[in-house]
Amino acid sequence: MSAARGDAPRPFADRHIGPRASQTQEMLAELGYDSLEALAAEAVPASIAQADPLTYAPMGERETLARLRELAAKNTMRVQMIGQGFHDTTTPAVIRRNVVENPAWYTAYTPYQPEISQGRLEALLNFQTAVQDLTGLDIANASLLDEATAVAEAVLLMRRASKKGSTVVLDSELHPQSIAVVRARARAMDFTVRVEDLSRGLVGEEVFGIVVAQPGTSGRIRSFDDAIAGAKERGALVTFAADLLALTLLKDPGSQGADIAVGSAQRFGVPLFFGGPHAGFMAVKSGLQRQLPGRLVGVSYDKDGKPGYRLALQTREQHIRRQKATSNICTAQALLAVVASFYAVYHGPVGLSRIASRVHRLATSFAAAVVSVDGTSLAGGDDAEFFDTVALTVPDADAAVRAADEAGVNIRRIDSTTVAVSFGEPHTVADANAVLGALGATETIDEASFDAAGEGAFGDAAIAAPAWTTDLHRTTEFLTHPIFRSIGSETQLMRYMRKLADRDLALDRTMIPLGSCTMKLNAAVEMEAITWPEFASIHPYVPAEQSAGWRELIGDLEDLLVEVTGYDRVSLQPNAGSQGELAGLLAIRRYHLANGDDARRVCIIPQSAHGTNAASAVLAGLDVVVVKTAEDGSIDLTDLDAKLEKHADTLAGIMITYPSTHGVFEEDVRTVCQKVHEAGGQVYVDGANLNALVGLAQPGEFGGDVSHLNLHKTFCIPHGGGGPGVGPVAVREHLAPYLPGDATDPRLVAGEFDGLGDPISGTMFGSAGVLPISWAYMRLMGGEGITEATRTALLTANYVSKKLADAFPTLYTGDTGLVAHECILDLRALTARTGVTAEDVSKRLIDFGFHAPTLAFPVAGTLMMEPTESEDKGEIDRFIEAMLTIREEIDAIGTDYSYEESPLANSPHTATCVMDDWDGAYTRERAVFPVQGLRLTKFFPPVRRVDGAYGDRNLVCSCPPPEAFETV
Amino acid sequence: MSAARGDAPRPFADRHIGPRASQTQEMLAELGYDSLEALAAEAVPASIAQADPLTYAPMGERETLARLRELAAKNTMRVQMIGQGFHDTTTPAVIRRNVVENPAWYTAYTPYQPEISQGRLEALLNFQTAVQDLTGLDIANASLLDEATAVAEAVLLMRRASKKGSTVVLDSELHPQSIAVVRARARAMDFTVRVEDLSRGLVGEEVFGIVVAQPGTSGRIRSFDDAIAGAKERGALVTFAADLLALTLLKDPGSQGADIAVGSAQRFGVPLFFGGPHAGFMAVKSGLQRQLPGRLVGVSYDKDGKPGYRLALQTREQHIRRQKATSNICTAQALLAVVASFYAVYHGPVGLSRIASRVHRLATSFAAAVVSVDGTSLAGGDDAEFFDTVALTVPDADAAVRAADEAGVNIRRIDSTTVAVSFGEPHTVADANAVLGALGATETIDEASFDAAGEGAFGDAAIAAPAWTTDLHRTTEFLTHPIFRSIGSETQLMRYMRKLADRDLALDRTMIPLGSCTMKLNAAVEMEAITWPEFASIHPYVPAEQSAGWRELIGDLEDLLVEVTGYDRVSLQPNAGSQGELAGLLAIRRYHLANGDDARRVCIIPQSAHGTNAASAVLAGLDVVVVKTAEDGSIDLTDLDAKLEKHADTLAGIMITYPSTHGVFEEDVRTVCQKVHEAGGQVYVDGANLNALVGLAQPGEFGGDVSHLNLHKTFCIPHGGGGPGVGPVAVREHLAPYLPGDATDPRLVAGEFDGLGDPISGTMFGSAGVLPISWAYMRLMGGEGITEATRTALLTANYVSKKLADAFPTLYTGDTGLVAHECILDLRALTARTGVTAEDVSKRLIDFGFHAPTLAFPVAGTLMMEPTESEDKGEIDRFIEAMLTIREEIDAIGTDYSYEESPLANSPHTATCVMDDWDGAYTRERAVFPVQGLRLTKFFPPVRRVDGAYGDRNLVCSCPPPEAFETV
Repeated sequence: MSAARGDAPRPFADRHIGPRASQTQEMLAELGYDSLEALAAEAVPASIAQADPLTYAPMGERETLARLRELAAKNTMRVQMIGQGFHDTTTPAVIRRNVVENPAWYTAYTPYQPEISQGRLEALLNFQTAVQDLTGLDIANASLLDEATAVAEAVLLMRRASKKGSTVVLDSELHPQSIAVVRARARAMDFTVRVEDLSRGLVGEEVFGIVVAQPGTSGRIRSFDDAIAGAKERGALVTFAADLLALTLLKDPGSQGADIAVGSAQRFGVPLFFGGPHAGFMAVKSGLQRQLPGRLVGVSYDKDGKPGYRLALQTREQHIRRQKATSNICTAQALLAVVASFYAVYHGPVGLSRIASRVHRLATSFAAAVVSVDGTSLAGGDDAEFFDTVALTVPDADAAVRAADEAGVNIRRIDSTTVAVSFGEPHTVADANAVLGALGATETIDEASFDAAGEGAFGDAAIAAPAWTTDLHRTTEFLTHPIFRSIGSETQLMRYMRKLADRDLALDRTMIPLGSCTMKLNAAVEMEAITWPEFASIHPYVPAEQSAGWRELIGDLEDLLVEVTGYDRVSLQPNAGSQGELAGLLAIRRYHLANGDDARRVCIIPQSAHGTNAASAVLAGLDVVVVKTAEDGSIDLTDLDAKLEKHADTLAGIMITYPSTHGVFEEDVRTVCQKVHEAGGQVYVDGANLNALVGLAQPGEFGGDVSHLNLHKTFCIPHGGGGPGVGPVAVREHLAPYLPGDATDPRLVAGEFDGLGDPISGTMFGSAGVLPISWAYMRLMGGEGITEATRTALLTANYVSKKLADAFPTLYTGDTGLVAHECILDLRALTARTGVTAEDVSKRLIDFGFHAPTLAFPVAGTLMMEPTESEDKGEIDRFIEAMLTIREEIDAIGTDYSYEESPLANSPHTATCVMDDWDGAYTRERAVFPVQGLRLTKFFPPVRRVDGAYGDRNLVCSCPPPEAFETV
Repeated sequence: MSAARGDAPRPFADRHIGPRASQTQEMLAELGYDSLEALAAEAVPASIAQADPLTYAPMGERETLARLRELAAKNTMRVQMIGQGFHDTTTPAVIRRNVVENPAWYTAYTPYQPEISQGRLEALLNFQTAVQDLTGLDIANASLLDEATAVAEAVLLMRRASKKGSTVVLDSELHPQSIAVVRARARAMDFTVRVEDLSRGLVGEEVFGIVVAQPGTSGRIRSFDDAIAGAKERGALVTFAADLLALTLLKDPGSQGADIAVGSAQRFGVPLFFGGPHAGFMAVKSGLQRQLPGRLVGVSYDKDGKPGYRLALQTREQHIRRQKATSNICTAQALLAVVASFYAVYHGPVGLSRIASRVHRLATSFAAAVVSVDGTSLAGGDDAEFFDTVALTVPDADAAVRAADEAGVNIRRIDSTTVAVSFGEPHTVADANAVLGALGATETIDEASFDAAGEGAFGDAAIAAPAWTTDLHRTTEFLTHPIFRSIGSETQLMRYMRKLADRDLALDRTMIPLGSCTMKLNAAVEMEAITWPEFASIHPYVPAEQSAGWRELIGDLEDLLVEVTGYDRVSLQPNAGSQGELAGLLAIRRYHLANGDDARRVCIIPQSAHGTNAASAVLAGLDVVVVKTAEDGSIDLTDLDAKLEKHADTLAGIMITYPSTHGVFEEDVRTVCQKVHEAGGQVYVDGANLNALVGLAQPGEFGGDVSHLNLHKTFCIPHGGGGPGVGPVAVREHLAPYLPGDATDPRLVAGEFDGLGDPISGTMFGSAGVLPISWAYMRLMGGEGITEATRTALLTANYVSKKLADAFPTLYTGDTGLVAHECILDLRALTARTGVTAEDVSKRLIDFGFHAPTLAFPVAGTLMMEPTESEDKGEIDRFIEAMLTIREEIDAIGTDYSYEESPLANSPHTATCVMDDWDGAYTRERAVFPVQGLRLTKFFPPVRRVDGAYGDRNLVCSCPPPEAFETV
């Protein structure tokens, strides 16, 4: 590889790729190949091999940053007062530096292995507790993808749980983007959406649920008592779309009769990010918890009786229940939920109330002054009640927006004679006065009086009563747990964040060899730009010219993804892989509908598919038909032919993963695609395993009509401890018209979909805020570098597979005896003979300082291992050493100890458990230092094996009292 | 405190100060006071209490950042090709993020406690090893303050070690700022400086040393064989001022006969920072190691025989040897040396050589093209040999500089007809061509040919031979240790940095209760601006108008420091406390000289003073006279009177610390000052303990004529693991003319000091790069906040003193029974009775997860404890619990175990030592979990107690081979 122009002497690709040249040669020699090219040529079937290599030039690190600065400078900085669900907020510097910019947090994986995830699980439990307290409901999840998705998920939950009729009534004051997203879901799943002013009560029957907005999108605060009573009479469920900051002053939804509350936690310290990623939230009344989509952290106990956190109720998730799952959502917005939780810890209940009170006072002061403008009045009438947003009737909304723009402020245009001005934490009296001046007000807010009427000294909890009807004043306490009341200083918060980070294993300490998850390097230079104000503080609904830099970057990233995948068009809207699937399947469905093929609803999915595939298909209104897997792990072509014949008239398409979830390049993928096409179906290629293809083969070329990609796998967006993710959908030209539309498009809000794609997120570019990461990765690597990465990923996987062949044989290989970029280690025979399960091995790996491979997917009783290209041979050999040592420990069962007495069954081992009395059948040294290297660098897990089943039987999903830890 | 305008609801001061209001009340109650004001009024003597409170307004966090952005924008970004010892470089993003912006690194203290400092000690050992390798000398230290200081220290070292005559000869090609700094030292210490072209050989006798510059300041590379031979003949020593990057291609100084090599490690990844902080370096031949100033990391063994790093040869340091010390330098530039060391690890020998080769090729290509300019020639003649810098004879240097400026590039003006153009890692062919264009060249460098003639693929070590005489080609290997050759990927480097960080305890995990060191919060928001390019990439010698933002910030900080201290003027040039002392004492000396009082050379220093005081006095040419300490720890007034009488005619002044190093507010400080003034002396108040005074009393008011402050103590610059520090010197008006001058002032370079202060650092504002931290701290706090911080510091110290009174009595208190901001815990009686030493307690505290208090200063057998205002009561109580538990363990000696068997004598305990066979006289639990809280969060030190004496006897100061760790 040649170095980029004017850059450091070493190309970035060489730093991204783990093995040095000599290590690559050693591994190749082990496998009997001369070169990476030779290995790749044998692994990838000739029938699909990419004809033209990727050749776009790499950029140097400095050049990349310079280009990003150029793009950033093309965005226009404004005081953002648009509101509509996105509010400017101050990310405390200590949280930005120690969480958002700290690889210990952002490179962590989803906390499926609780013993090495106690830190982020505690942070997420704090998030749940804060949401529960503020909404007054019993159980909150650890985040959804955005507010619009959360509203849609709430509607689906109500439909599942209430089973009364097929109509949902949405309050007309819901944010338009939420209405549009719900309408898209309704269209796919055949239920009815009515949009009405629910503050006037509920009419009609056959309603399974209602969604009220408090505050409404125009800022108004209204009572929904009548509508709620009406819903209860009909057996319908009630969802509140709420604002967490407003809830510090506003009567909590639980007390008003809500069954569900949803919203966004963005304004708890998360930058605007041009629309995302932000943590959506959902809280429900007790009884609905098993219907709750998304992840839920619960409290259980470890083997020694010490409290241990873990993900609860996983059985309801899509990877278990497939098409019967409650939702298709996998990825959460974990990192953003963590930020919001620390924001709540940082400010505590008093601080949050003071922020809310000040924002509210700014809004009321503004409202009092703005009526001095000729021809301008409060849109809700003189006695309109509001929290932070003031809607105004003006002679000319466009002129008002323009005038504010010229004064440096973005306000919202609602319609031709209505604008809204929305206040947030960072806004000042000067900002408010700037808008007043721009609108031509004769009055302004007097800063001195405003400050004098302020919230008083800190700690003085006497917050002025909000200016709305007393009935809706908050009276219940919140954030009562000590964690929200005991961390008063930055020093304490810094240490708390470090303490939690230290309990977890992330990529900054160990390889995370998770098959199908592609945990590769998230380079610091790739992460740089995302927190720059010129990217981070752009509101998603600014005029297009203000986001020119963003749009240019996004356009360029789309072009790069097109080049890599061989498709024709890409949409970056889906903010998770699951959403990319949904978008892709909706496109297929729309395509058939446009061709008059209403009956084409059957989606064929292989047995080995990720459960999300089936769950997404259901959400897209498709019927799932499973095709069998042959002995060798590939799709059973005979069964496929049978299924295609049987569903000839109703076939919508097939969803396949390539390389397959078995980690194998199937030889006949092109044939499969042809067969489906011949049967009139579309081919969906799940891009989860694209890290094995980039530069070597293109799904858009070998038969795919549509794919989703996972930017948080192949394209280096860090996993963030379980999100954010980005799941772009890539399509061939004929599906392009059905790519996701803009949820704020008035036609979509009104339910007119003709010529428009179904929106699946509230903003056009979903998790835009993290796209600079993937952009930087692709630009830094260049076509040659990114291809070299793919080949190296094939090398490391095959190296591991070979080195572990005797101890843990690989279940499936391709015809050439090679695996793709991952391998499934089969433990079933060992389990049958010794009792040692794949889970035992996973937990035992923790004692060696490793995160476990993927457990029991796609085949129960196995571990799926994916080293990626970023791990060097030293770390891979350390893993192999650990696995071979574990194999020896397994072999000693029956001679040295029984299974129950074995270090496997008793793993992982905490420092505590070996420090006290020890009556193990093996030594303390065997327990914690099974290999000598651990004596130099050792990670002790904070808990022993956590009892998942107990936690599910005794569901506790908020912070346990401090006393719970006293006797551990 | 009132919140700042338009800011978060909670003032910053409230986040900086650890105890919440309720905790403050609890601690006050414990001490019997109603309010912080009442406590402070009793602690601070009425005679010095500040009349007018500090009232300047606090700024909010957002306001502060906005103001910093405003100031940053006032600096002008240019391609920096000035050179002169400061070169643009690329800080790898992974190092910036994980070291420079990571509190685990920047909040660490100096590694005096090796067991919790193994990480940064290893990084510093890597630094030493790199410097040794590159210079070809035997032992390198772990950094000096800057290159100019390093040259001055080398001169002083040669003077001490050679003892031949009193003349040093400096090469005329040394950087002018180095010459000026040496001249200032020579003036104070009465030796002669000759500046000559040493490439022509050495003439004259009575020469104790020579300093040659290779490359020279104009870029030239010359041979000094004759001068070196001449020096050897005369018994004089030879110092090379060298450039680490050049040394990858240039014959190493050791092979050329150097005894010493000095320089700056700045261009190894450390930003320009407007002049500092950067790590200066010094390496010496074997035999001179005990003369080496600054810190030296050595290898020894721990109690279990495992290799352990530690600071070596501390007995030669100023805190032990006082006026007999080898140097007054305490603070190093640890954090910057760490950055440089990781930069060397990141690039390795091949990478560094490639950077050097490319820079050199740029310079030679530039030189070849620039002679096409009419009237322009190479200043050194057509066959001048150079590395990275090309000096040109031009018709009009000012016009050339201006033209380059207009083309976006800063070049250096040497004199009216000479300019120099200096290339660095980030510079491109386009940059070079921009200068060529500006100068009117008809030729340019062809980018394609330049790239084609490049360094080839990475890993291909075939670097083109440099274009200078073969005799000076490098032939020796360097960076041969595996650490510089095994870390190929960013993933590996990230994990290496995390692994090292995890071995250390810094403020992000625990209180560091170091008396006299004031380890307080370094808030993230304070740290934000220092890495912004608009601050970090400004060269120290840019035209003043290009650094307008810097100058405004610095001026404002000076004004704030004046307001706080009660002095009239402040200079921020001294880049460490020791340098501030030197600057202040030089000002006193200059003042007396100006008054014709040549004889006034006696500097009275109390027994209890920090050793640096005496060492600095010697460097300022003063004679130290010690005044006794009375029983109560205060200055013995009778002895003072006697000393004043005895030295009536020769008294220069007194150096006192206030509150005293005993942690006490002495009642009669005003009297002491008056007595000295009456005797014709000046009063130097050491500002080390200013954290007890800010807002309560002003040294400039109660009698000080001059003080130095420690911005890295009272004003929140983090300690960085042992630097950077900033030691501003503050003076009354009559001393203002003697504040440090600009080392690049041609008069100072020529040795004309009339009307100019003595420069003590190579740049006008020393460690300018970190000044935004203190500026932000002071602005965020406001006058009221900063005063509240001081009162709280008094509270926490007195609280600890009281709570530990029975177990570890406080040695000294003021007349009111109160201590100041720290307290000395007296262990001498316990030691006499049980054998347990203060060091044992220090090491035992590690088992509790604490950094030790200050050990054996200012009184042997004691621990000095300073909690600062930033620690909350919870952390303080955790410390008290630990100390009381330790006291119980001490009391059990003689009953439960002997001293030798006790957990004290055997502390600290590693995980390893308790995991294997255990035959301790106490349980494993007692060893590592002496209190229950540790079971939840435990820090295991990586080594047991390190044997310092062994390491000093068997001095090893470079990286041990990997095999050394194999059997641990």
